[in-house]
Parts: sequence; C-alpha cells; structure tokens
Amino acid sequence: MLLPVIIAFIYRESDWKYFLLIIAGAAIVGGLLYLIKPSKRRMHAKEGFIIVGLAWLVMSLVGAIPYVLSGLIPNYLNAVFEAVSGFTTSGVTIIADIEVGSHAILFWRSLTHWIGGMGVLVFMLALTPIAGGASMHIMRAEAPGPTTEKISPKISQTAKWLYIIYLALTLAEVLALVICKLDVYKSFLISFGTLATGGFSPLNSSLASFTYAQQVVVIVFMVLAGCNFALFFLVVTGKFRKAITDSELIGYLVTTAVVVILISLNVYMVREQFDTFGEAFHQSCFAAVSALTSTGFAAYNYNLFPWFSKALLLMVMFIGGCAGSTAGGIKVSRWQIMIKAVRRYLRERIHPRSVNVVKFNKKEVEDEVVGGILIYFAIFILIYIISMFIVSTEKNMDFTTTFSCVATTFNNNGIEIKTVDFGGYFNFHWWSRVVFIVDMLLGRLEIFPIVLLFTWLFTPVRDVYKKIRHKTEY
Amino acid sequence: MLLPVIIAFIYRESDWKYFLLIIAGAAIVGGLLYLIKPSKRRMHAKEGFIIVGLAWLVMSLVGAIPYVLSGLIPNYLNAVFEAVSGFTTSGVTIIADIEVGSHAILFWRSLTHWIGGMGVLVFMLALTPIAGGASMHIMRAEAPGPTTEKISPKISQTAKWLYIIYLALTLAEVLALVICKLDVYKSFLISFGTLATGGFSPLNSSLASFTYAQQVVVIVFMVLAGCNFALFFLVVTGKFRKAITDSELIGYLVTTAVVVILISLNVYMVREQFDTFGEAFHQSCFAAVSALTSTGFAAYNYNLFPWFSKALLLMVMFIGGCAGSTAGGIKVSRWQIMIKAVRRYLRERIHPRSVNVVKFNKKEVEDEVVGGILIYFAIFILIYIISMFIVSTEKNMDFTTTFSCVATTFNNNGIEIKTVDFGGYFNFHWWSRVVFIVDMLLGRLEIFPIVLLFTWLFTPVRDVYKKIRHKTEY
Repeated sequence: MLLPVIIAFIYRESDWKYFLLIIAGAAIVGGLLYLIKPSKRRMHAKEGFIIVGLAWLVMSLVGAIPYVLSGLIPNYLNAVFEAVSGFTTSGVTIIADIEVGSHAILFWRSLTHWIGGMGVLVFMLALTPIAGGASMHIMRAEAPGPTTEKISPKISQTAKWLYIIYLALTLAEVLALVICKLDVYKSFLISFGTLATGGFSPLNSSLASFTYAQQVVVIVFMVLAGCNFALFFLVVTGKFRKAITDSELIGYLVTTAVVVILISLNVYMVREQFDTFGEAFHQSCFAAVSALTSTGFAAYNYNLFPWFSKALLLMVMFIGGCAGSTAGGIKVSRWQIMIKAVRRYLRERIHPRSVNVVKFNKKEVEDEVVGGILIYFAIFILIYIISMFIVSTEKNMDFTTTFSCVATTFNNNGIEIKTVDFGGYFNFHWWSRVVFIVDMLLGRLEIFPIVLLFTWLFTPVRDVYKKIRHKTEY
Repeated sequence: MLLPVIIAFIYRESDWKYFLLIIAGAAIVGGLLYLIKPSKRRMHAKEGFIIVGLAWLVMSLVGAIPYVLSGLIPNYLNAVFEAVSGFTTSGVTIIADIEVGSHAILFWRSLTHWIGGMGVLVFMLALTPIAGGASMHIMRAEAPGPTTEKISPKISQTAKWLYIIYLALTLAEVLALVICKLDVYKSFLISFGTLATGGFSPLNSSLASFTYAQQVVVIVFMVLAGCNFALFFLVVTGKFRKAITDSELIGYLVTTAVVVILISLNVYMVREQFDTFGEAFHQSCFAAVSALTSTGFAAYNYNLFPWFSKALLLMVMFIGGCAGSTAGGIKVSRWQIMIKAVRRYLRERIHPRSVNVVKFNKKEVEDEVVGGILIYFAIFILIYIISMFIVSTEKNMDFTTTFSCVATTFNNNGIEIKTVDFGGYFNFHWWSRVVFIVDMLLGRLEIFPIVLLFTWLFTPVRDVYKKIRHKTEY
C-alpha cells in the first residue's frame, strides 16, 4: 500500500492518509500476532490450503477498506466485492462511474490485480523462505493448475524467478504502451490488468477509446499472460524447443486461433457492425483473447455481437488459459487431460483387457492426478448449480444473464454477456453479491483452499452438533 | 405395428395399409438377414453396446416411415426426429398441428414411447432368451442407470418381471383415467406417455384442457414411473421395508418435494397467475414432477412462470429420475454417488493417510463404478458443449433457448423453456435437428452405445486413413 501513497503524493491527492492508516493498523495487528508462538511447526497439505484460504480472505477484507474510506464505494460489501474482483483478477467492477476515482485509489484498484495475479503468498515465499515442506504446500495451493512445475529445486528460487519474469513482462508492456502514446500512469494500470489477466480499466468504456496500436499491444500481452510462466523461464535459459512443444501451449494457441477465426467470420458475415474484414478481425481477436485468457478488457460492446459469437465467448470463459499462468477458468490442461481420460475409458470399454495410460506432454499422468481432475469438474458443476440456484432468486434477470454473471465471476473473467441490462452488480441482492464474491475466490484458488477453509471454520460447529447428536442417541 | 392396424380398423381409417406394408417389408428383410449365420456366437460388452446402438438406429429409421407415408410429416428427417423423440421418451414434437393426425398414427406415436421406455431389447429378452453372456451385456447397455440390479438370477426372468410391472402400472393408469371420465383411447395414449416418461399428447395443448382429477392421476403415475422398477418387484414380493429405505428413492422423493415447494412458493408469491395457493401448488406439482421425471407433459404454459421457477425447471431436467426407471436425465443415483465421491476426495485431502470408501445403499461402491460415473459427467459436458456449439449457429435464437433445447433433448425431457418463440423444431436448420436426434439417442442409451456405434461404423474409414498415413510416412 506504499505505492498508492506515492501516487497520491505525485498527484497531490489526500488519499494517502487512508492507506497509511491501514498500513499502521496492519502493522500493529501483525506485530501482536507475531508474539503468539505456534506450538507445532510442521505443515501438511491441509495447513497449506487453510493458510492460503485465510490469507486471501483477510487480504480481501483489508484491501476493501481504502474504497470505503475514500468514499468511492461507501457500502463495505460492495467494497469487498471490488477488492476480491481485483485480487482474484476477475475484473468485474461494481463501481458505476469509475472515472470519479482519484489517481491513488484507481492505482490501488489495478495494483490488486497485479498482486493477486501471480499470488501474494508466492511473493512472500520469494522474499522470505519458510523452512520445512510448508512452502511447497502453500505454492501448490495458490498457483493455478493441476500440477506445479518446479523451475528450480528450491521453492524460494522458483518464486523469485516467477516474479522476475512477471515484473519484466509488465515493464515491457508499460514501455510498449508508452511508445504507442499512452500516458505513463494509464500504461501502468493497463499493464497491471493485462499481465494479471485482470481487466480493471480506469475508464468507464474499458479500452474502447484506445488506438488500434495500443489495443494490439494489449492483445499480445494478454496472450503472453495466458501462457505458463515456467515456459518463459525455459525460453530465457535457452530451452526454446522444449517450451514451444509444450502440449498445453499448443492447445491454448490452437484454441485461441480457432475461436478468433470463428468469431471474426461470424461477425463479418452478419454484415451489420463492421465495414471491413480487418476491423471485424481486430475486434474479434481482442474479444476472443480477452475472454479466453480471462482478462475481461473490452474494446467493443460485445452484446452487439451476433448470438453465435456471444455463446462462443460465454463458453470459452470456462476454458481459460494455461496452468501456471495468471489466467482464470478451468485451464487448458485440465480440459486436455479430461478428454484423454474419457478416450481411455471408452477404449477400455471396447477392449476390456487392454492397459491404457493417460499421457500428457510425453509423460504419464498418474491416476491420482486424472482422478483429481475429474473430481474438479464434478465439484465445479456442483458449485455452479448452487450459485445459479441462489442468483436465480433475482427478480428481473433471465437465465442467460444469471448464467453469464456466474460464469464471469467463477472463471475470474470479467466479460459481460447479458440480455437484461441490470445496470451494475450493485443492483443484485446482498446474497447474490456474496455468491459472486465466494465464486471469485473459489475460481482463483481453484476451489479446494476455500472449501477446506470453510470446513475448518465450521469444525467447532460440527463438533458441537456431533456431541448433541451423540447425547440424544444414547 | 399390429396394434395401430387394429386401431385403424376400429376407427375405420385407411392408415392400416402403411403399417402392414412396413410389417411385410421388415419381415422380408429380417427373414433374409436370418439366413446369414454368424461365424462367432460369443459376445462381449462391446458387441452388446453395438447391438443396442444399431437396433435403436434401425428402429428409429423404420419407425419414422408411417409418419411420412400417412402425410402427417412429409419430411423424412422430421419424421425421424419424431420417431426418435418417441422411442427415447423425449416427447419433443416437431408436428405443428397434432390434432389433424388419424387415430392410428397418433396411437403409433404414443406407442413408440411405451416401447422405448422400458427398452425394446429388454422386451425381446423377455420373449426369447439368448444363450451366453449376451443378454446381460444387452440389458446393461439398454437399461438406464449406472448399475443394473438383477431381480432374478436369470436375465429373461428379470426382463419378464419388469415388463409385467410396466404393463400392470400402465393398465392401472388407464383404469384410473377412465374412472376420471377420460375416453378410453386418450387414456391409453396418455398412459403410454406417462409410464414411459415420454410426454407426447394427442392434443396441441398437451394436458392443459384436462380436469384436475385427471391431472392428479397423471402426476401420481409420473412419480411412479420415475422410481426404480426393481423396487416395485420388492414391494410385490413383500420386501416393503427394503424398498422404501432405498437411498436413491429417498433422494428422488426429497428432491421432488423440495422442488415442488420452491416452485409453488415462488409462483404464488409472484401473485400474477394464480388466485389461490392450492392452484399454484397443483400447477407447480405438475410442472416439477413432469420436469424431474423427464416426462414433459404440460398442464400450463411454463414460460409464463417467473424466472426462478423456470431456471429451476431447467436445472432439474439434468437430475432426472431413478436408475432402472423409464426416466431420462443423468439419474438421481449418479448425482448422489458423484457428491459422495467429491466428499471422499476432500476428506482425503485433509487426512491424506485415511482410507475412505464411497458407500451407497449401505453397500460399498467399487472404485471402477465411481470412476465411470465421473467420466459420465465429463463426457456429458463435452457432448453438451459440442451440441451447444452447433445449435448456436441458428440465427434468431438466444443463449437460453439453445441451452434449453439441448437440455430438453439430451435429457429426454420435453419441457420447453424458451425466450425466443421459434414456432417449432422444424424451423431449425437440418444440422441442428440432426444434433437433437443424436442427443436424444445419446441421452436415452446413456451415451456409450451410441459413441461405440459411431466408433465401430467409422473403423473402416479410420483404417483406410491409417494406411494412407502409414504409406506417406515411409
């Protein structure tokens, strides 16, 4: 929060005091907590999950305070919505008029993307290595994707490398945008939003008012942000061939290309909006990449697209980027392994005595990982249905709108496809907003940390319930 | 097809000649095929699946002919659509005006439901037992649900018992409807549609013009048709306690009750349509049971319901009835076991060294069955996405309508929730109608027989392709 303080001083704004206040408060509470010495130091997967879940919850609750204090979002629940949308890189905004916000507060808003994109705890691990197996468990729980590749045998080294690549790419985009004549402040904000696949823009019209060159820069960096960051490390260390033959990368790029071609053909053939194919292609490219990488920037009002393109945008949200990227969604590799598991199952039903293994990236995928991915899809469906069920209680929404709102939050996307113009997320009932907040957290942390956190928080309640039941039984 | 001939004679209609023509044709072709003696007589699961898939395909292609010959549906593809919708008990009609159909043809239309409901091949097994393990494989492939319970150690006995129960329930409903002053002809048609959870009605307004008493009879028998038929056998043989403690039955009844209560409260609270709670409850009951059991009868225009109820109806389509019933959908027990598998997975992540088994109905579910169910959900999603993708190419549809059309065909449901009034399924492009036809078959036969049939049909093509590839490689 020191960065927004600096921004406030540069633009001579008064918002610096709110941020300093929160820093002081956090330092005091943190200092007091530091005095409590833990009795056990060993950590398992469970503790890793709960630490990550708890950290993200606290971070969101604290990160929302500046919005309330500055008066930009007076309602605390809405402020939490915006903070969670920021940290989880969803980019769904609850603010009706963004442009009234001060430079400092909008900087903080986009900075939450950048912090959440690569993972806060991964950042901590890069700075302060923790002894024992703890760091691995934390890293696994926070990094997106079914497997965590180790760049270096040491976790703290891996974390450091990831952040160096992340920072370098961010600065490269800032430079490119500045060259394309965007002012430095906005370049930083947009770059934070791009590299984190976030999608917050300091403008109400998102990126619609940007020049073509600026939009092309954003498209390129959105595609990069959706790639596995471990691959950039391979490129840097000269293993270029290994990087470009990565199965997930190929799947991701092919999917992107197919979706871009389909949408641009569809948009161009329904000759209402664009005069030239080039224009249709440019807008389709931006839309497809923004939806697939879960960024959520908009260079056009996508609700004006024909229905085939809109349905396609809605569906690719569920695909998302690569594992190990900052993108949301279910991730390309999960889909690939799931399809391979289905094919293996069918093969085994035809030839019951044959032995088949699921191979991915030329390596055998353990049955445990395959099972975990199938369970991931199952739990994804269950949470989706529960969310849809609660959000459906809204009176003036239709199925498409509720479906798309859940899709955009759960996949940390930010693209809005709606048939009912509900005006803004603040018009939803509080319970729907809570659902969206929980869904964004579930989506970013890939379900398990948040589910385990809730299980852990409710353990005392359950124990009491069990005791009562036990007593009444005997 | 002898039954429609009799009906035609009773009502002095000329349609009997079409049916006799087809009977003669089928007898000749069947007789010729009978002359070919198979070289191998042993059958495995693969052959069972392919026999079932092929039988359903041929049955649909032949069952469509009466519609074309009688002139009710001149277009053959549309006639196949109607036949598949009948056999698969979907109940989605492509006929604009049903009431112009003759008694014989409408009898055939509803009879297809009854034939397809319990399974054609199960019926064959009841009449002519086949040697070897073949009958078990065929029964497994055609009967709905993840497991096939054996009522009797002999398959032919099981099939016989299932058909006796099926027939008895059908006649019971006919009797109840006749007592409620519905004419005998219509009583038979509606009973075929109810017990098979089909949904074809001889009236354009489905069941809206029926009296309350008649509708209540239909509700009761819809609920019964959604139960596992093996449970009726238990009841008949005095094992009443075992039948009513069945986990799936309890899940099914509780789900039905919850959905009925939610919809009737929602419909009543949005006080526009119904004056009394009783009326709202009656209509909600009919709607919920019709959607859950995948019957698809309508006693009201459900598109006038508020969105929460419509979304709920749309979602419960995916649940469906019990395994071993005539209902469509994913089946209650699959959902129950899937949820238990998710819970086991979470427990194992918290306590990695604990051993957990999935229990259902007080019995342990084998890991293979659990894995198969998870794969079923995965493959269901994949086919759903492909279907949505193709149907989205329709120009004047929106997301809700395409989503709901795929849902209603894939789940063999028949309830129509739509925001765009497309007039009738004949207005879809041919490729969308083909998708619906394939989806209905996939839904009824629970995916694998149809997928394996296609794999088998395309094996020669694949072999040629492999040969070409092989040649170009060397």
